[in-house]
Amino acid sequence: MINIIVDAMGGDNAPKAIIDGCIEAVNMQEGFKITLVGKGEVIKKILDDNKFDRNRIDIVNANEVIAGDDTPTKAIKNKKDSSMVVGFNLLKEKKGDAFISAGNTGALMTGALLLIGRIKGIDRPSLPALVPSKKNMVLIIDAGMNTVCRPINYLQFAIMGSIYMKLIYKLQSPKIGLLNVGSEDAKGNDTLKNAFRLLSSGPVNFIGNMEGNDITSGDVDVAVCDGYVGNVSLKLFEGAGSLLLKEIKGIFTKNMITKLCYLLMKSAFKDFKSKFDPDELAGAPVLGVKELVIKSHGSSKAKTIRSAILKRAIPLIQCEVLNEIKNQFENMEVKPSDDEIS
Amino acid sequence: MINIIVDAMGGDNAPKAIIDGCIEAVNMQEGFKITLVGKGEVIKKILDDNKFDRNRIDIVNANEVIAGDDTPTKAIKNKKDSSMVVGFNLLKEKKGDAFISAGNTGALMTGALLLIGRIKGIDRPSLPALVPSKKNMVLIIDAGMNTVCRPINYLQFAIMGSIYMKLIYKLQSPKIGLLNVGSEDAKGNDTLKNAFRLLSSGPVNFIGNMEGNDITSGDVDVAVCDGYVGNVSLKLFEGAGSLLLKEIKGIFTKNMITKLCYLLMKSAFKDFKSKFDPDELAGAPVLGVKELVIKSHGSSKAKTIRSAILKRAIPLIQCEVLNEIKNQFENMEVKPSDDEIS
Repeated sequence: MINIIVDAMGGDNAPKAIIDGCIEAVNMQEGFKITLVGKGEVIKKILDDNKFDRNRIDIVNANEVIAGDDTPTKAIKNKKDSSMVVGFNLLKEKKGDAFISAGNTGALMTGALLLIGRIKGIDRPSLPALVPSKKNMVLIIDAGMNTVCRPINYLQFAIMGSIYMKLIYKLQSPKIGLLNVGSEDAKGNDTLKNAFRLLSSGPVNFIGNMEGNDITSGDVDVAVCDGYVGNVSLKLFEGAGSLLLKEIKGIFTKNMITKLCYLLMKSAFKDFKSKFDPDELAGAPVLGVKELVIKSHGSSKAKTIRSAILKRAIPLIQCEVLNEIKNQFENMEVKPSDDEIS
Repeated sequence: MINIIVDAMGGDNAPKAIIDGCIEAVNMQEGFKITLVGKGEVIKKILDDNKFDRNRIDIVNANEVIAGDDTPTKAIKNKKDSSMVVGFNLLKEKKGDAFISAGNTGALMTGALLLIGRIKGIDRPSLPALVPSKKNMVLIIDAGMNTVCRPINYLQFAIMGSIYMKLIYKLQSPKIGLLNVGSEDAKGNDTLKNAFRLLSSGPVNFIGNMEGNDITSGDVDVAVCDGYVGNVSLKLFEGAGSLLLKEIKGIFTKNMITKLCYLLMKSAFKDFKSKFDPDELAGAPVLGVKELVIKSHGSSKAKTIRSAILKRAIPLIQCEVLNEIKNQFENMEVKPSDDEIS
């Protein structure tokens, strides 16, 4: 049976929100188990207050906690009995199929690289993010793990992103765009121009340069970029959604008539809000490392963790996304020398 | 009296939409004149079909047109009788207070640099863009003119952006943020870290690193970034707005009740749409050159040009933004050597 290892102690609302999210997930869906890692006594107390199938959540004790302001490399190296390091070790020993943490992002990335390790052929693992568009979901890759990228990284992001969208959304040939300042071929700085060249001859369905608004148009399935642009885009997208929802709320609370309209339309707006709710979209896999590591954001609530388990971890395990990435890179000759200007 | 020089031939919808926009502007507001530059016969014919004060729009003939796919430098150097080059020359000869064009962006930037020239002390002029936030308008600078920037450029963008927001929006001390992948001090790549250092000791109210969602929160007044990130952000913002409006439209057309609600709320939604309408926000000045050059986007409609004249050009002239930028840089010692890692 699928087993998901969860860092009970990571994140602003840990451990309660994390544990509540796990219980919600277990109560909503069959077919998987959870291993909670952290301070056993604390976890047990929260579990005891709730109703769920006791056979589906177990606890592995870890006495330390990596804090949000700990230095990533130091924390991973020194806090051997932290929930995060113990969680990584369980994953490495194949005691689970995925490890989810809402803890210190830098430490999680460092742990994924140092304790789990890169897939052969991949220079830079990446953290992608999904956003809604006018058509399907769109994957932004990288969304924050690599703030400076070489052209070869863009190609590798494109290959991983293509596999992700192919397996998870059953797309035959995901359309890959290079996020740029214009849609014409020769746009952008030298790195982007070289990335364009590599992508053009790479094993992906590259449709060329794209602009910021093409993310939301849905004309591409994967937007390839460095983690600086990707991170700003992802967060701006969330911010724009929040701004527009606030404006709409203002319109509906204007007078009695608009308030009545809101009551009449409440259920329709609920679906709409959930589609743009960052908590529903949360849970990003670190693609390019040997096991499935999933980052949930620091302010994760119970529903964020529930989504990360049900909507992110389980589909990624069931669709064998990591295996497909390993296969593709094993059979590929990666030539970082292609990186240079020809 | 203020005179605005307008390139009648630039843009996808030129010359009709451009000329219509000028007529609308003249009919809506007193106190300025317009000089239309382009093919005299064509312009005259369109003007003849409309009602407006004939003393307020005149024509300067130019027989050539710079096309959207012309190579910028070549076009500016060779097409001496194009509406764009003639417009630039009129501006240089002080025959007008601003020059607006919706034509070839590259050519407009090249012309601004070659024919008008940089203000002393400014290494890289910049194209900023305004977006709405939960509080006031926020200026993204640079929004596309410079895809690779050195740390000193960020400082210069910040100074120009600060002056812009101070004079146009009467802010005492505009809050300047550096657009980054996290809000902590030591975030981002080396360029961003050095830009952070320069901004910290610069003559601006620097509040530190900001993330994508801080653009829409309104907690900063100016978001400083390179033109790659800024351009993607601006266009993604527009795209997110368009996506959300589409979703809302879908909700309102669901059934008879929701359709009725829409009718009841129509006027409230009109204000909302206009706030997020890219055409209303259009018209970006090239800050850092000696005269006021304003770029309106290629797909400008009549209302876009009207906005560029009434909401962008005239306030920029009246508030003497360029003079203030010139004064500030004249009295400042710019040391590009501060650029390097210390």
